[in-house]
Amino acid sequence: MRLDELARQIGATVAGDGAIEIKDVAPLEDAEAGSISFLANAKYQKQLETTSASAVIAQPNIESMRVAIVKAKDPYFAFAQAIVLLRGHRKHGFTGVHPKAHVDPSAKIGEGTVVYPGAFIGRDAKIGRDCIIYPNVAIYEECLVGDRVIIHSNTSIGVDGFGFAFNGGVHHKIPQIGNVVIEDDVEVGANCTIARAALASTIIGAGTKIDAQVMIAHNCKVGKGCIIVAQVGLAGSVTLGDYVTLAGQVGVAGHLKIGDRATIAAKTGVMTDIEPGSTMMGIPAMEAKDARRVYAAFMKLPELVQRVRELEQGMANLEDSGDTPIA
Amino acid sequence: MRLDELARQIGATVAGDGAIEIKDVAPLEDAEAGSISFLANAKYQKQLETTSASAVIAQPNIESMRVAIVKAKDPYFAFAQAIVLLRGHRKHGFTGVHPKAHVDPSAKIGEGTVVYPGAFIGRDAKIGRDCIIYPNVAIYEECLVGDRVIIHSNTSIGVDGFGFAFNGGVHHKIPQIGNVVIEDDVEVGANCTIARAALASTIIGAGTKIDAQVMIAHNCKVGKGCIIVAQVGLAGSVTLGDYVTLAGQVGVAGHLKIGDRATIAAKTGVMTDIEPGSTMMGIPAMEAKDARRVYAAFMKLPELVQRVRELEQGMANLEDSGDTPIA
Amino acid sequence: MRLDELARQIGATVAGDGAIEIKDVAPLEDAEAGSISFLANAKYQKQLETTSASAVIAQPNIESMRVAIVKAKDPYFAFAQAIVLLRGHRKHGFTGVHPKAHVDPSAKIGEGTVVYPGAFIGRDAKIGRDCIIYPNVAIYEECLVGDRVIIHSNTSIGVDGFGFAFNGGVHHKIPQIGNVVIEDDVEVGANCTIARAALASTIIGAGTKIDAQVMIAHNCKVGKGCIIVAQVGLAGSVTLGDYVTLAGQVGVAGHLKIGDRATIAAKTGVMTDIEPGSTMMGIPAMEAKDARRVYAAFMKLPELVQRVRELEQGMANLEDSGDTPIA
Repeated sequence: MRLDELARQIGATVAGDGAIEIKDVAPLEDAEAGSISFLANAKYQKQLETTSASAVIAQPNIESMRVAIVKAKDPYFAFAQAIVLLRGHRKHGFTGVHPKAHVDPSAKIGEGTVVYPGAFIGRDAKIGRDCIIYPNVAIYEECLVGDRVIIHSNTSIGVDGFGFAFNGGVHHKIPQIGNVVIEDDVEVGANCTIARAALASTIIGAGTKIDAQVMIAHNCKVGKGCIIVAQVGLAGSVTLGDYVTLAGQVGVAGHLKIGDRATIAAKTGVMTDIEPGSTMMGIPAMEAKDARRVYAAFMKLPELVQRVRELEQGMANLEDSGDTPIA
Repeated sequence: MRLDELARQIGATVAGDGAIEIKDVAPLEDAEAGSISFLANAKYQKQLETTSASAVIAQPNIESMRVAIVKAKDPYFAFAQAIVLLRGHRKHGFTGVHPKAHVDPSAKIGEGTVVYPGAFIGRDAKIGRDCIIYPNVAIYEECLVGDRVIIHSNTSIGVDGFGFAFNGGVHHKIPQIGNVVIEDDVEVGANCTIARAALASTIIGAGTKIDAQVMIAHNCKVGKGCIIVAQVGLAGSVTLGDYVTLAGQVGVAGHLKIGDRATIAAKTGVMTDIEPGSTMMGIPAMEAKDARRVYAAFMKLPELVQRVRELEQGMANLEDSGDTPIA
Repeated sequence: MRLDELARQIGATVAGDGAIEIKDVAPLEDAEAGSISFLANAKYQKQLETTSASAVIAQPNIESMRVAIVKAKDPYFAFAQAIVLLRGHRKHGFTGVHPKAHVDPSAKIGEGTVVYPGAFIGRDAKIGRDCIIYPNVAIYEECLVGDRVIIHSNTSIGVDGFGFAFNGGVHHKIPQIGNVVIEDDVEVGANCTIARAALASTIIGAGTKIDAQVMIAHNCKVGKGCIIVAQVGLAGSVTLGDYVTLAGQVGVAGHLKIGDRATIAAKTGVMTDIEPGSTMMGIPAMEAKDARRVYAAFMKLPELVQRVRELEQGMANLEDSGDTPIA
């Protein structure tokens, strides 16, 4: 594809020779002639002097004598589009349900959806159009999956929530008779677990993206457009608003509400409701600006102990010297 | 089922019209006429004024003019029984080993056990009666599973423990020749890993319930009736007593012993043995009453630093004023 | 096998009767006559007085009147070799690709490699010689796996990295067109996820051993001979040097570098680059010697608060007494 045509299709402009032919995408350091690359951050700008790429997508203020610059207001988005143009999305090599998948006869699979070998789709489950269900995904009965949903390998959807009534020394299983509803345009990473609701539905809102090894317990309601990074755990009945970001290894205790557009830093332990728009971090979760001061002080605790020890010594000296005249 | 008959079968009594017909269970907010619901907590009592449920299982002291109250000493357990009565347990749609499962010819599968598509059961493994082995569970050779055990999808049982002898710059694999023994009435959630012992058995005691994404390393001995919440990790050779509760994302270091009925709060890092009956929290694990004071002080650390700074200033002033007269 | 012959083969010497026949290996407490066992630590030495084992592999300075001691400079490594001699490695019961596995016709599988039922190997993937791919492992297209690699059940290799460009209120998927390269002699535990690179390769260096439920995000470069314990999470583009050890539940933030032979304690949150050879612990990661002092002070925080309170009281008294004379 000619560079100027590529730029046009991704809403960018070319500074340099727009007539060159672009054949592939590659990272700056590995790119060969004929490739387009991407400058993620102006601080890596000196790589423009060594890359063999023929063109680089970058912020509009970036200049180069060596290589054509494709100037885009949002270079990362422009680069994503360029990859799609040059490489397309994954080719599956088969259409529909692979014969080595197991789909219950009562389940419904939408047009354009592919179901990989080893995937299991249970009774009365419904999968929308143009979904990708990767190998060995298990979707239990009655779960509902919207359109254009991607679920990566070895993920479990609709497994029983963890509910037991303790009586007479025995944990009695509470049948989990709800389901999971995954709305349109959700992506769920590999090795995740989303448990079905006890009675109603565990819900993953439209456009939410979930990384690998995430655990979402029964009765959770996840809003739209959320980003949930790897190894996050939501306990039962947690509610996330829209566009919430949970970084890696966050844990959220049961029945809590996290407001729209809140951001929770990695490893945070959320033990209270979180206001919309907040940025939280720490164990337990604190407002980020407070947490930064708390952790800065935490890392200097031995020094603080020493200062207190010196104060105690100083105080003892003063009290002694105060006592002396009286004696 | 008539309400009074349902109440009788779950050991509860009806305040209101026992002759009404109950057709289903539902949460208070979604229930329709003919449904029975459940009041989990007296603080949600005002929902009794708006629910469309025909009956509600609740503590004996709860009253309502609108809806029949099914009074039970342990309402949660009564509700669990009501769900079983009205909905039954999951219907599998097949019996025994599904043809798309893989069971080694030497493995033994008990009567009434169902093995879902994609499950793998290795050489000389034994699965007891009335178990459910969900899709894509892998049970390696020689593992022993008791009766009425449930194992959810994509869980791995009996994989090699993580044991290597480092010699000459190489991590040499130590063959893991033990197995996993899962006793009766255990439930293991989805995407869990339970590693086989190096030489003897990793043991999961009877009636223990394990949530999703839990890692239990080789040689662990988990007692009876334990509750292990999602994303917990037990390092090698950990021993849990009976009725231990580990909340989400807890980590326990190798070779430690946690006593009977101990409770460990979410995200706790256990680095020492834990006494029976203790409640522990924090990183590192502390007695809960201590931990609450430690974390309260932690969150006010910047304030404490400021107080120390003011003390230092006060001390400097006093020392100055103390010096002056002498000078 | 005669004990003296076994000792010879594992590079050890026998103190006691080398002519006895050894039939099996077992832990000290369960061993029967004819078994060889292993004394991991001199502090368990009194078990030598009660074990029924016929021989015990131990440090050269260990003595016993009851049982033959097989003296080895590195007893753990010697024991590992003894297990291999007496038990061999796992027998698979089949050779090559099991008919219930799914291997794309374009994928290449080396000689001596076994692929278990339910495993999925995608287009143009290459698996080397003498590998073991356990049940329900998914290896996406174009991933490269070296020789003698072991991958345990339900692990996902080459799934899409978690990359989205946010534009117009939508998270747009960035096609992940790189792959995963796993070098020779790597072992990957069960239920792990290793994401393919966005453009180039996510790399796991030769001889690295990965425990269960580990998440390695796109573009990571893991060095040679590393030990990565269960439930660790590496965010995108993390670089580990050689012989790095990450203990359980460690999290490493994106784009960081951890130097050769660094050791990171369990549950640590790594938020900065780590120097080669460092030992780090804590959230956030600190040098272990500093972290020990910080956490010791942390656990005594309520006491420190009390000391500050007493200082404030002492100060108030002194200031009062100081004021009085002036008045």
